[in-house]
Amino acid sequence: MYSPIITLTTDFGLRDSYVAEMKAVIASLSPGTLIIDVSHEVEKFNIRMGAFILAQAAPFFPKETVHLAVVDPEVGGQRKPIVIQTKNGFFVGPDNGVLMLAAQFQEIQKVHEITNPKFTLKRISNTFHGRDIFAPVAAHLAKKHISVEEIGPKVLHPLNPGFAKVSRRGNTLHGEVLHVDGFGNVITNVTEKDLPKSAPDLTVEVKTVSEVIELKLTKTYANSPAGELIALIDSHGYLELAMNKGNAARGLKLNPGEKIILKFCK
Amino acid sequence: MYSPIITLTTDFGLRDSYVAEMKAVIASLSPGTLIIDVSHEVEKFNIRMGAFILAQAAPFFPKETVHLAVVDPEVGGQRKPIVIQTKNGFFVGPDNGVLMLAAQFQEIQKVHEITNPKFTLKRISNTFHGRDIFAPVAAHLAKKHISVEEIGPKVLHPLNPGFAKVSRRGNTLHGEVLHVDGFGNVITNVTEKDLPKSAPDLTVEVKTVSEVIELKLTKTYANSPAGELIALIDSHGYLELAMNKGNAARGLKLNPGEKIILKFCK
Amino acid sequence: MYSPIITLTTDFGLRDSYVAEMKAVIASLSPGTLIIDVSHEVEKFNIRMGAFILAQAAPFFPKETVHLAVVDPEVGGQRKPIVIQTKNGFFVGPDNGVLMLAAQFQEIQKVHEITNPKFTLKRISNTFHGRDIFAPVAAHLAKKHISVEEIGPKVLHPLNPGFAKVSRRGNTLHGEVLHVDGFGNVITNVTEKDLPKSAPDLTVEVKTVSEVIELKLTKTYANSPAGELIALIDSHGYLELAMNKGNAARGLKLNPGEKIILKFCK
Repeated sequence: MYSPIITLTTDFGLRDSYVAEMKAVIASLSPGTLIIDVSHEVEKFNIRMGAFILAQAAPFFPKETVHLAVVDPEVGGQRKPIVIQTKNGFFVGPDNGVLMLAAQFQEIQKVHEITNPKFTLKRISNTFHGRDIFAPVAAHLAKKHISVEEIGPKVLHPLNPGFAKVSRRGNTLHGEVLHVDGFGNVITNVTEKDLPKSAPDLTVEVKTVSEVIELKLTKTYANSPAGELIALIDSHGYLELAMNKGNAARGLKLNPGEKIILKFCK
Repeated sequence: MYSPIITLTTDFGLRDSYVAEMKAVIASLSPGTLIIDVSHEVEKFNIRMGAFILAQAAPFFPKETVHLAVVDPEVGGQRKPIVIQTKNGFFVGPDNGVLMLAAQFQEIQKVHEITNPKFTLKRISNTFHGRDIFAPVAAHLAKKHISVEEIGPKVLHPLNPGFAKVSRRGNTLHGEVLHVDGFGNVITNVTEKDLPKSAPDLTVEVKTVSEVIELKLTKTYANSPAGELIALIDSHGYLELAMNKGNAARGLKLNPGEKIILKFCK
Repeated sequence: MYSPIITLTTDFGLRDSYVAEMKAVIASLSPGTLIIDVSHEVEKFNIRMGAFILAQAAPFFPKETVHLAVVDPEVGGQRKPIVIQTKNGFFVGPDNGVLMLAAQFQEIQKVHEITNPKFTLKRISNTFHGRDIFAPVAAHLAKKHISVEEIGPKVLHPLNPGFAKVSRRGNTLHGEVLHVDGFGNVITNVTEKDLPKSAPDLTVEVKTVSEVIELKLTKTYANSPAGELIALIDSHGYLELAMNKGNAARGLKLNPGEKIILKFCK
């Protein structure tokens, strides 16, 4: 049994009616579609955070899933509404980078602007494209009866902010914080592949606390005493600074975007 | 393919099991029904806020949707449990006004009290009618095998609190704040139709800051510099005071219910 | 029409992508399954709170529902991943007590460890068993094509923390606080059956405020003036301390685990 899926990632919060209005539009146009919330608690206007969260979740969805993301400070302005078709599915939202990170992991095939009024609501407000443009386009894509070419013209240079690259000097890695999760785990842009093969111990230099901290590279939280600062490879392959039963980000005063310097003891 | 929809609007929050218990009852009695959350973050006991949020969302749902709303400080007391049938669907909840605003926009046809024990849980608690009365009635309505007449007797005078009307004196409008959304946008009861045809500039007098503020009537947030106070028609047709990438409500110290005076500089 | 249900109870919060990743795995392996959130706002690492919330919700779900709960401070450590089969359905999660309270109410039939790699994701991370182990096992159980015996060996002594028993001395009951809900209602472990038949008045002694407080045992919030402290039997059969339109827990400074002493004035 094929059941199409649409995911939603926004900074709308769950208190107002905005998310429900998008779901109402989807359920009206594409009954039977399964709608799965990725997050509506992205910080207001934080495109980078929305992009990160969507990129974490997207790989686990089945083929042909339609991912709708709206973190859209320039709604009604110059930024284009777009659809990205990848090898695995579709991404619908503003052309401000919020879709790009997740889409890139799936091999981008086509990027088109949304201009065809056949696939949007008849009346488009200036302030809520999530409901009036993105939700109806996602619903039409989920029904699989349209091609992205019908939606509008090709976009030649979609915005692609990217994430800071990790740089290496000898046994030192310069990286940055991508995300702090609800447990206070500090997720960095350093991946498993960036790490030396045999280095269970490392130091991390964090400007926010003007300190060089010694850490153990461990396999899981439960391996270390409660309250000890540890480093581990998280469930998505990123190096994470964590504290067993504690909040690492609070202790280290680390926020997304902050630089970290890792040194490996041979 | 017909798939019935039930929406939920409550002040229960998402931390406790209460919302899940209502969904369990619905899924048991009416398998296959799509349940869509409108909001569970209505302020505790704030009937007015629940009514507003439901009224924002309801128009976007397909015909025959059943809207269940529970903001119910008098649960177990004298207020009646009711069902409202409108031209477009059904509303189920307490007779305290929480359903009325949304229902009125859809042409009310019938209002009936819920008294028939055939359509509620067998054991009705004194404190959780959302689960024991409203959820099962909504499930039965979604299955479309009962009429509202079977549910109980007609209600002659359902409670109808209404919203404050806008009053006009010359080029001055006296209105009030209906809602402050998660972005800090201040939604007023002034609608597009209340505004003069050609008045891009206006002043707003706000008692909370004892100030008369000059505003531009603009089309969207992105048109103005970040941090500038603006007025615009929002995605539901209401006049909204907003701040591009900022929080207008915080700056103006405005909360729902507060009066505002608008003057138009023709 | 049979539609399988999986419920989710976690301490993951709704801001990150973790809940969506579990849903993605379930939707991939068992399309058509209805996923219902019980709560994702369990306090981080608070197994007792997760167990309580799941136990409140579970009885309202239809037979064969699969309940997945992850409050799992020892993830990746020694605690076992388990499946419990009861008379009414299945419970999937860590063997740390989070499942036990709800499962016990349903007559436990079998407890098995999850060891068969056929029913988990191929790559199991050390930190996210919710996605890599529990979600796929729940999906396979929802499809009803496997037996718990296939999942792994029998668990002889699953962890069973239990709740503190109520003790009685004459007309005095010694109990404790199980939960404080979002309304500030204080839910105790004293049940309807523990109460004398004819005692509308009682006193409660609360150490946190060093006071003996007189209360009326009433039927519902709306029976008493706003702000008055009352006691009533809640919608799950527990004695609850509440305040009509107020927050009883704040006034009494009560948190889960705190002892209370009830005296009945016959």
